[in-house]
Amino acid sequence: MSERVKIGFVGLGSMGLPMACNLQAAGYDVTGFDLRDEAMAKLEKQGGGRAASATAAAEGAGVLVLMVVNAAQARSILIGDGAAQAMAEGGIVALMSTCLPEDVASLAREVEATGRHLVDAPVSGGVAGAQAASLSIMAAGDPARIRALQPVFDVLGSKTYVVGSNPGQGAVAKSVNQLLCGVHIAACAEAMALAETLELDTQVMLDIVSGSAASSWMIRDRGPRMIRPPGEITSAVDIFVKDLSIVADAGRAAKAPLPLAAAALQMFLSASGAGDGALDDSQVIRSYRRLLGRE
Amino acid sequence: MSERVKIGFVGLGSMGLPMACNLQAAGYDVTGFDLRDEAMAKLEKQGGGRAASATAAAEGAGVLVLMVVNAAQARSILIGDGAAQAMAEGGIVALMSTCLPEDVASLAREVEATGRHLVDAPVSGGVAGAQAASLSIMAAGDPARIRALQPVFDVLGSKTYVVGSNPGQGAVAKSVNQLLCGVHIAACAEAMALAETLELDTQVMLDIVSGSAASSWMIRDRGPRMIRPPGEITSAVDIFVKDLSIVADAGRAAKAPLPLAAAALQMFLSASGAGDGALDDSQVIRSYRRLLGRE
Repeated sequence: MSERVKIGFVGLGSMGLPMACNLQAAGYDVTGFDLRDEAMAKLEKQGGGRAASATAAAEGAGVLVLMVVNAAQARSILIGDGAAQAMAEGGIVALMSTCLPEDVASLAREVEATGRHLVDAPVSGGVAGAQAASLSIMAAGDPARIRALQPVFDVLGSKTYVVGSNPGQGAVAKSVNQLLCGVHIAACAEAMALAETLELDTQVMLDIVSGSAASSWMIRDRGPRMIRPPGEITSAVDIFVKDLSIVADAGRAAKAPLPLAAAALQMFLSASGAGDGALDDSQVIRSYRRLLGRE
Repeated sequence: MSERVKIGFVGLGSMGLPMACNLQAAGYDVTGFDLRDEAMAKLEKQGGGRAASATAAAEGAGVLVLMVVNAAQARSILIGDGAAQAMAEGGIVALMSTCLPEDVASLAREVEATGRHLVDAPVSGGVAGAQAASLSIMAAGDPARIRALQPVFDVLGSKTYVVGSNPGQGAVAKSVNQLLCGVHIAACAEAMALAETLELDTQVMLDIVSGSAASSWMIRDRGPRMIRPPGEITSAVDIFVKDLSIVADAGRAAKAPLPLAAAALQMFLSASGAGDGALDDSQVIRSYRRLLGRE
């Protein structure tokens, strides 16, 4: 795959926009589409093209990257609007959103029926990883298609893990990853709320657990934001309502009980239900404080 | 406090023995006591003394380090057997076991009544940290007594956190630390058991979560042992039954709900109830496999 390949990119959100810009900066010919005009304007400023619709962005593209909200939106674009059909013959869709595994598997079959292909390639690393091009990519699909996409993945992330040859397995791996992320954020909130209740110095407590066997990436990243008033938002509470719901659905489909993930989901749901859905996900600690009558 | 200070050391278990040996090697005059004769023999080989009882080890000591099972055992030694009274006038007890906060607070008052003092100083870092003298120490008590013990702590660990001036607050900090450790081990087991059920390559999955935002110290340390057959034991399932029970008791005393810690405790309890209490704590994954009918 040469760098002249035309790439369509649909979904220029907080992660999609920097990803599309990184591809454009690497020499690809990127045409983007998003419902928000200002997102397309930003891509245009980096030298990319803007399209009038998702299907127009896909027109003639050898690669179509989707960074949309969920599988339903991906399906409506690819099949409903006919974006798959609009791609170059044999083109490859890189579905990089976090989706339900079974939805990805069935969508891949529908794309295949149009003579195009789908590689399941969700990412981990968040907005910071998207901007720094240091995402971890969990790819699943036909090995030859994954190899063909490798130069694109190499621009977007620092590591590609091939987790299987069936689309849907990337989504499965992402859901296992998100199970841990969500549980770790909630566990940090639970521990810090307990420390507050027991009148410990929360900064000292955070120093202790950041450097001990109790440590997690989430403690070091989200912990400091939990003991300060709500401020910057890097990823919202509602993103984890969505991601842990996918985890819960994947567990239910597999008949696998997930007691910690289930408890963590309740705490994020509670935060969202109380009106904190758009706050930074560290603010799930407010759910604990509410239980304690302190918020 | 000069290095001539006589130190009594009670509880020469997997952590206590290397701690006592480190103190002896640093030039302190250490007299140890343990119910197991071979543990005292090992300390003797390093040049330390052996005592016929805990009280004999405390006789005339300026510092008495306790690394026993729980506060009840510490109380029986200090008050029941009269070890506190046997210490040098003004001597300081360093209670380094993991105990219930309220038990530590009341024990400190009883020790104070004998004219000796108690500093609450539980540790984190496990057997490896005890051997390498890289423990984290969570000290709470009279600031002057903590300062007096600092040279001793500097031999045993790499970092002393002063978490408060009331004995019991060290135990509180340790319980917050253990909440996170226990939840992280159970979460890793939950995620890996889900990965097994969904037929992912668990080694690839472990590589992904070890390097992503999903990572924790426990994933990197215990994860590899979860996907191999049960083998080496660094810390047993029953240690977390104990530590998470202390967390649960601390939460109950403070009327603080701890949904994730409660769920994690159930999984460790289940492992212990099924006969795995003496296995490595990574084997809590067997509780998940049992739920799935796979063990």
